[in-house]
Amino acid sequence: MSLIIVGSLAFDTIETPFGRREKIVGGSGTYCALAASFFTRPGIVGVVGEDFPEETVEFLKRRKIDIQGLEVRPGKSFFWEGHYGEDPNLRTTIRTEPNVYEDFKPQLPPEYRKSEIVFLANIDPDQQDEILNQVEKPKLVAMDTINLWINQKRDSLLKVLEKVDFYFANDEEVRLLTDEKNLIKAGKKILEGGPSLVVIKKGEHGALVLGKDLVFGILAHPCEEVIDPTGAGDSFAGGFLGYLDKIKDFSDEKEIRRAAVFGSVLASFVIEDFGINRFKSLSLEEIENRFAQFKKLVSF
Amino acid sequence: MSLIIVGSLAFDTIETPFGRREKIVGGSGTYCALAASFFTRPGIVGVVGEDFPEETVEFLKRRKIDIQGLEVRPGKSFFWEGHYGEDPNLRTTIRTEPNVYEDFKPQLPPEYRKSEIVFLANIDPDQQDEILNQVEKPKLVAMDTINLWINQKRDSLLKVLEKVDFYFANDEEVRLLTDEKNLIKAGKKILEGGPSLVVIKKGEHGALVLGKDLVFGILAHPCEEVIDPTGAGDSFAGGFLGYLDKIKDFSDEKEIRRAAVFGSVLASFVIEDFGINRFKSLSLEEIENRFAQFKKLVSF
Repeated sequence: MSLIIVGSLAFDTIETPFGRREKIVGGSGTYCALAASFFTRPGIVGVVGEDFPEETVEFLKRRKIDIQGLEVRPGKSFFWEGHYGEDPNLRTTIRTEPNVYEDFKPQLPPEYRKSEIVFLANIDPDQQDEILNQVEKPKLVAMDTINLWINQKRDSLLKVLEKVDFYFANDEEVRLLTDEKNLIKAGKKILEGGPSLVVIKKGEHGALVLGKDLVFGILAHPCEEVIDPTGAGDSFAGGFLGYLDKIKDFSDEKEIRRAAVFGSVLASFVIEDFGINRFKSLSLEEIENRFAQFKKLVSF
Repeated sequence: MSLIIVGSLAFDTIETPFGRREKIVGGSGTYCALAASFFTRPGIVGVVGEDFPEETVEFLKRRKIDIQGLEVRPGKSFFWEGHYGEDPNLRTTIRTEPNVYEDFKPQLPPEYRKSEIVFLANIDPDQQDEILNQVEKPKLVAMDTINLWINQKRDSLLKVLEKVDFYFANDEEVRLLTDEKNLIKAGKKILEGGPSLVVIKKGEHGALVLGKDLVFGILAHPCEEVIDPTGAGDSFAGGFLGYLDKIKDFSDEKEIRRAAVFGSVLASFVIEDFGINRFKSLSLEEIENRFAQFKKLVSF
């Protein structure tokens, strides 16, 4: 297993201006692994309750996602309910029920301990740390988080951040973490704290990739209707890291730029339908076509 | 005169997180003409009071801006006071005093009536219309406006818009004009109303250029400190139209893309200092270097 993704597999109830869906499959790990699966064969680390649909597990397997790291436990799967208004960048969390994630202390399968890339998607930073410590010699560690942990577990989060190479966050999270409004300044502050790369996702405004000597900007795919923004950030990270895992080059600036665009491409697809639906029909050809569109969008 | 710029020459009192300046020279026409002057020799149409500094008029002349269309009248120059907070995209107007613009009814000098490009920068849409009617056969008409006119003189504004080829606006204005949150949808609505090109300026998020078969996105220059955002939009239009006037091609898609980037470049400079200060030291070499930086920023 060269890329492992640690995150949640969950049920989401989602309301957007385009409709409401009750208890559909979501979760940071689910989105991320599915996005990565278009480039590589990731392993997933997470826990679900007995209520989690067998059909989804089968779908993950069909997409060549390794599920050795997926535990099934008595109890209910993680549940999140969120609403989006007209601005897809703003979401309101109605309810979060960690359920089986409450005391999740995974033991990584032996194969996973030798993985080269570890992505710590949004879960409790203490859990992220515990899992990271089980990986013997990762070449690349990446993480994501959400406001909840920045507010409630800042110290734990900063501890993980020190061990991280690539930090993925949205603009709001970056501002909250650094107490700095200007994103360039905020990104630089984070670079001082450990990571060699900060990827700031700005929703409809694209993304900004900052490294020691790198400033790379990506525009979002011009989209008239964001059906469901859930999972966009996780899909971004999945596309990004899946591509890097495929090409086995984690430092070439040109490849970092391409990886970030593939991340944007995957994010641009997932928001076209509720939950993980769009991934069910998505093809590599569509991904490559949209990659070309992203290029055309900014070329001059 | 092949490019004429109709707008205000004014005094501004500006407060930003970086300081306060009382009664410094500003105005949509001033910014726009100065930006355009790096590419071509624009003529300016506007009116000032007797209080307007001779020194500024000399500066315009030194930058090869034609001032045959500039009237000096008894009374006070246009005055605007505005404040910006931490988000440079949001500004609060404290005071607007049209003064000599109150009953401004310019008669265009004969040479100006034969101009090829007319830019109607932000002034009262009835005044924009009256001036436009004096130009015999313009090849390209562009306009800008502000929320004030969209709210107070919507019908007059829509009437001008029908005669316009390129419409420049910021995201907020586009949303207000169309009552549509999504910028792509909003832009398309405006394209239906007359213009063949809509340029949506998004401040720190860059700009979007929409045509019948064109979607072009530009990222803003990554800027750690926006000293004074005033005039960014006018400088954008000035750089854009100045470049087109220089190359005499108003329809080639490749040139439209380049023009828009030059617009962004000029805007990115003007915000580095208060008022029109940055234009006093700016060189064509700096403009070309930043153009190259804009390319590097988005290349993959």
